[in-house]
Amino acid sequence: MRTAILGASGLVGRKMLSLLESCPWLNSDPALLTSPRSAGQEIEFRGRKLICREVSASAFHQIDLALFSAGGAASRTWAPVAKNAGCLVVDNSSAWRLDPQVPLVVPEINGFMINPKPGIIANPNCSTIQIVMAVAPLDQAVGVKECHVTTLQAVSGAGQKAVQELLDQTRDYPAIQTGTSAYPRTMAFNVLPAIGAKTEGGSYEEETKVVLEMRRIMDRGLDLHVSCTATRVPVMTGHSAAVRLVCAAATTPAQAVATLQNSPGVQVLADPHDFHTAREIAGSNDVFVSRVRQDPGCDRSLLMWVVADNLLKGAAWNAVQIATEIAHQIAADKQG
Amino acid sequence: MRTAILGASGLVGRKMLSLLESCPWLNSDPALLTSPRSAGQEIEFRGRKLICREVSASAFHQIDLALFSAGGAASRTWAPVAKNAGCLVVDNSSAWRLDPQVPLVVPEINGFMINPKPGIIANPNCSTIQIVMAVAPLDQAVGVKECHVTTLQAVSGAGQKAVQELLDQTRDYPAIQTGTSAYPRTMAFNVLPAIGAKTEGGSYEEETKVVLEMRRIMDRGLDLHVSCTATRVPVMTGHSAAVRLVCAAATTPAQAVATLQNSPGVQVLADPHDFHTAREIAGSNDVFVSRVRQDPGCDRSLLMWVVADNLLKGAAWNAVQIATEIAHQIAADKQG
Repeated sequence: MRTAILGASGLVGRKMLSLLESCPWLNSDPALLTSPRSAGQEIEFRGRKLICREVSASAFHQIDLALFSAGGAASRTWAPVAKNAGCLVVDNSSAWRLDPQVPLVVPEINGFMINPKPGIIANPNCSTIQIVMAVAPLDQAVGVKECHVTTLQAVSGAGQKAVQELLDQTRDYPAIQTGTSAYPRTMAFNVLPAIGAKTEGGSYEEETKVVLEMRRIMDRGLDLHVSCTATRVPVMTGHSAAVRLVCAAATTPAQAVATLQNSPGVQVLADPHDFHTAREIAGSNDVFVSRVRQDPGCDRSLLMWVVADNLLKGAAWNAVQIATEIAHQIAADKQG
Repeated sequence: MRTAILGASGLVGRKMLSLLESCPWLNSDPALLTSPRSAGQEIEFRGRKLICREVSASAFHQIDLALFSAGGAASRTWAPVAKNAGCLVVDNSSAWRLDPQVPLVVPEINGFMINPKPGIIANPNCSTIQIVMAVAPLDQAVGVKECHVTTLQAVSGAGQKAVQELLDQTRDYPAIQTGTSAYPRTMAFNVLPAIGAKTEGGSYEEETKVVLEMRRIMDRGLDLHVSCTATRVPVMTGHSAAVRLVCAAATTPAQAVATLQNSPGVQVLADPHDFHTAREIAGSNDVFVSRVRQDPGCDRSLLMWVVADNLLKGAAWNAVQIATEIAHQIAADKQG
């Protein structure tokens, strides 16, 4: 397996590289591809320094599998080039997620869609991944009719610059920042209900992603009623989501907890007063579900609190899981 | 009108005093009452220094109207004493809010319940006030069947110590605090889905308050289905709430905006992409509604973003509004 990472010097790219270090199936160094601006940077891998190279058409010629995390524009440019060079792309941008030809995969939910042929597999939106990890098992077990979400998202989802800007603004408190570049308004000691570009119906991109991607991953149509308000909070890493579900039939918190206890990649707390927080679970690959309660007004409705590391399960870890499955399938094909 | 403030040295007590400075009906200095610990402190009022005195039974003998903001235990002790001394108490604690003999009042919604007789009037929970200010006008206009809320609450709701502790923890970042006293876990750069004591059904006090107090203020029963997940975020002042409503009939965002434009004390943005944030509106007495959108899955359902200063409309301003109405009624009675 010859691998590459496009966007290797970014927050997610570095997490991907760090996770690949301990993948037994990877027995050669990944090619580190970046924009011209970051080319020449050195990044450590398995104790040695690898040098980032500028991405180009020829860069994909010797590559079987490429992990992309360089934004939508780079993905739209380079994914078709890589595919034509015979490469399989696991893409972390939103560029291909709604393309009907491109599987949108969370391995624990719809890993059966992974196919080791040249082409593109899309890694879903960070918030969507953690929500679907908690909701899809309940959909399988009891049927879910509605899913209403408020997200409280960390700034690392917006990249290194956003993290630095929050630190700078925090130091400047109580000054209100007028010239912020990573955020639409001052982020420090504030909450911003606007993530990404404006989309239809008064929504923002992040909200629309949750609605559309959830249905794709769970293979559901408009019969799954999803709504989302997405907010950015002054947290470095770890997205939180307050989720309200309406199930097809009466469902107790105990039933939901039992289902999630048997769901791979999910850690669930049975005591509804206990909870996980973003700062405490940052660094873990799992999705953490807590505060599983009955909605006081409806025996078909459940409330829960879902937290995950947005850079790991929300991005790099989900992509590396897909890559690992591809590697295993290729190895099995060769053996067969 | 002879007035007093119990808890005058606290965050809310000081805001009450500051708001009373510009009340034309108040023509004498309020008595400032505190715990023994804070007695002797000087606080400025209309350019002069007033001295806090320790609360005692005799302190209420010459008082017509007392504003209480010293916590539930102090209210349970002193409100009956004050009432027996012929005083009218506007109480900002949760001690009396669910007592059927005690009106729970947001003046714009159910101000008709204010009655200038000795007794207790309860000031609702901070989050509940701002939510009900946005929801009750829509209930009047089109009928509301369900209200599902996620709150993102500022630390000043937990008092001065909590504010200082967030500043300390922020300075200590990235250290995780083990010995926090104002919070159940580290607050800086984190979100905590737990406010107040544990209540039934896996809820926390703040969530239960929103459910029960909303129904009381709106004079609704179990037919109003309310659910709430309450979270604390690293914001100094200004609570935010993501609200999802299900109305009795199809309702457009334009209808909702028009209704709220005619609602006193509410400022609403018609462009659903525009929004208010906690830091920006802190210091204002109004409730700010924005991001009014149709829930993409239901024409009877609306999403909105509701922000208010938790120390002002969420506490001191609502209490001073009640006090002002009482003063006007007493003045009218005297004239009549």
